[in-house]
Amino acid sequence: MNSRPTLATVAELAGVSRQTVSNVISNPHLVAPITLERVRAVIAQVDYRPNTAARRLRTQRSFVVGARMTTDFDGISGYVLDHFLHAVTSAAQRVDLHILLYVADDAEAEIQIWDQLLAEGGVDGLVLAHTHADDPRTRWLSERKVPFVAFGRPWNNNGTHPGDHAWVDVDGCAGVRLATERLLELGHRRIAFLGWPEGSGVGDDRLGGYLAALAASDQDVEPLVRRCDGTVREATEVATELLADPELTAIVTVSDSLALGASTAVRECAPRQVAIVGFDDTPVARALDLSSVAQPVDIVADHCIDFLRAQIDAANARFSQAKPVNPADRQILIQPRLVERASSRSPN
Amino acid sequence: MNSRPTLATVAELAGVSRQTVSNVISNPHLVAPITLERVRAVIAQVDYRPNTAARRLRTQRSFVVGARMTTDFDGISGYVLDHFLHAVTSAAQRVDLHILLYVADDAEAEIQIWDQLLAEGGVDGLVLAHTHADDPRTRWLSERKVPFVAFGRPWNNNGTHPGDHAWVDVDGCAGVRLATERLLELGHRRIAFLGWPEGSGVGDDRLGGYLAALAASDQDVEPLVRRCDGTVREATEVATELLADPELTAIVTVSDSLALGASTAVRECAPRQVAIVGFDDTPVARALDLSSVAQPVDIVADHCIDFLRAQIDAANARFSQAKPVNPADRQILIQPRLVERASSRSPN
Repeated sequence: MNSRPTLATVAELAGVSRQTVSNVISNPHLVAPITLERVRAVIAQVDYRPNTAARRLRTQRSFVVGARMTTDFDGISGYVLDHFLHAVTSAAQRVDLHILLYVADDAEAEIQIWDQLLAEGGVDGLVLAHTHADDPRTRWLSERKVPFVAFGRPWNNNGTHPGDHAWVDVDGCAGVRLATERLLELGHRRIAFLGWPEGSGVGDDRLGGYLAALAASDQDVEPLVRRCDGTVREATEVATELLADPELTAIVTVSDSLALGASTAVRECAPRQVAIVGFDDTPVARALDLSSVAQPVDIVADHCIDFLRAQIDAANARFSQAKPVNPADRQILIQPRLVERASSRSPN
Repeated sequence: MNSRPTLATVAELAGVSRQTVSNVISNPHLVAPITLERVRAVIAQVDYRPNTAARRLRTQRSFVVGARMTTDFDGISGYVLDHFLHAVTSAAQRVDLHILLYVADDAEAEIQIWDQLLAEGGVDGLVLAHTHADDPRTRWLSERKVPFVAFGRPWNNNGTHPGDHAWVDVDGCAGVRLATERLLELGHRRIAFLGWPEGSGVGDDRLGGYLAALAASDQDVEPLVRRCDGTVREATEVATELLADPELTAIVTVSDSLALGASTAVRECAPRQVAIVGFDDTPVARALDLSSVAQPVDIVADHCIDFLRAQIDAANARFSQAKPVNPADRQILIQPRLVERASSRSPN
C-alpha cells in the first residue's frame, strides 16, 4: 500500500498546492475550471484514491448514511422496507454514498446508536422509516440539525401536518381509492374494507381512499368497515364474519397480510367467489393471484437520496453560505399503481 | 463537540500514557489487568468515545464489514439472502461491527468496489454469498489475505472440495433427504424431484438428498427427476407433465419458487391432491400451507461473524504472533429442519 500515490504526489505532478488537490476532491466549486481539469487528469493518471480515514478527518465527512435494519423479518409486512433498503443502497451508490446498517429495539436505543455514530463521525446522515406523530427521533435529529430523510410522512393525530423535515411517501389514500373505484367500475355494490385498528396514520389514510371512492360514486354504496390487527389469523376470522353477508362481493384490505387472511376465508367458503385487493404487491399477492396496490419503491429511494444528499452538502458547505430551504421543497408524495390480477373479478 | 473528553483527558485522569489508553481500546491483551480496570473506569466515568476517524488512522481498522446487496428483489428467491442480511446485521452489532452495503452487477464490479473500499480503509473484511467453483472473488481475496467469510460452500465441479477459506453453509442434501424420508414414511411410493438444471452446486446437492433417501429406503422406489429453471411458470409446466403420471403422489422441489409452480399445477388438476415440499420456508410457503425445508439463518449469521471477527483480530494482532489456522476450523455445515404443513399429506 505504501507505493500508492498520495495527495502530495498529485499536488507535485499537477503543480498545485496540496490544499488545491484537497479542494478538487471535496470542494470542487472553489477551484478554477482549468485547474480542476488538470488536477483531475493527474488523479486519473496515477489512480490516486483519497484515503477515507484521512479524508474523513479533513472533511469531517464519512460518505456513509445510516439506516435501521428491522429486526422482525417475515417477508410480508416487512417486504416494502426490505425492498426500499435494496433500492436505497443502489440510489446511494450512484452518488458515492454507502449505507451502514444498525439494529435497534426502540426509539431510545436508536437515538443512542445515532449519538455514538455521529459523535464518532461514522455517518453523515440518516434514512428513517416508520416515523410518527411526536416522534422523539425526528425531534432529536432536527434539534441537532442532523441531515435526515424519512420514508413516510410524520403522521400527527389528524393526519394533516406535513412536519418540518424532509420525507418521501406513497399516497396510500390514492392507491386504495384507485382499487375501490376499479371494483365499483366492475359492478361491485357491496364492498367491505378490512383495515388496521384506528389511530394508525398509514391505516387511516388508506381507509380514507376507500371512503372517498364510495362518497364520489354515483352509486349508493354504503361503507362497511371492519378492523383487525395485522395477523393473518385474525384477518381470516374477521373476513369469515364479513362473508356471512350474502350481498358482499368484494373486500379491499389495508395490507397483503390481511388480503391473505381474507383469501383464506374465501377459499374456506368455496365455491363462493369474492374479489380481494391487497396493498404492497408482495410475493404472497403474486403467488395467490391477488390484486394489490404497489408502492414505487425505486422512485421513493431516488428522492430520499436526493433530499439527503442536498442536506449533507449544505451542512458541509463551509465556504459557501447555505441557503435556507423551505421544508415543503423536500417533501414529496408518490402515486402508487394498482396491479390487477385474477382476484379482482367482476361480481357473479 | 469540543467539550467531549479526548484520549489525553482519559490518560491524564487515569495517570497513564496516551499509548496505554490507546492499547486499552485496541489491544487490551497488552495491558496489565489492574491498569485495564483503572483506565476503563475513567473511560466510563467521563463517557469517553474514541473518534472513529482518528481510531481508524491509529488502528488501521474501520470496524465495518462489507456485504453485497442483491439487485434483483422478488422476495422469494432472494428471501434467504435478505433474511441472512437481517441476521448478520444483528450478529455484527453484538460484537461492535456494522455492515456496509454495496451493489455490484458482476464479480468484476464487486472486486473493483472491494479494491476501493480496502484501499480507503472503509471495511475490515467481507461477507460473501453465492460463491462458486473457481470464483475469481474468493481467489482475489485469498491472495490479498483479506478477512472474509462466505455463506455457502465453494462448490467445485464434483461438489467435494471444501476450499481453503472460511464458510458457513446449510446442509441442503440433509434437508431434502429429511423431506423425502418423511414422504416415504407417510406411505408415498411415487415421489418426483423437481430441480434446477444440472451443474448448480446447491441444486445438485439437494437432489443428492432425494436420491440418498430413495436408495436407503427398503421400499423399491424409482427416482423420477425433472429439471427446470427457477421460474414459477416453467415449474408449473413441468409439474403439469409430471401429473400425467396417475401413480404420482408427491413432488419434492429444490426451492419454494418451484414448489409454488407445482402447487399451481396441482390446483389446476383439482380435485387431485399431491403432496408438495419446498425449500427455504418463505412467506409464500406459509401462505400456501406448503411444507418446506427451513435454513436456520440466525445460526449461520452468528458463525459467519465469529469466523470473520477472528480473522480481523488476527490480521490486526500486530504485537502478538497470529497462529496459523486450519481452514477446516472455520468451515461449518448447519443442519436444516423440515417445517411440515398441510401440503405434506398422506397419499389418498
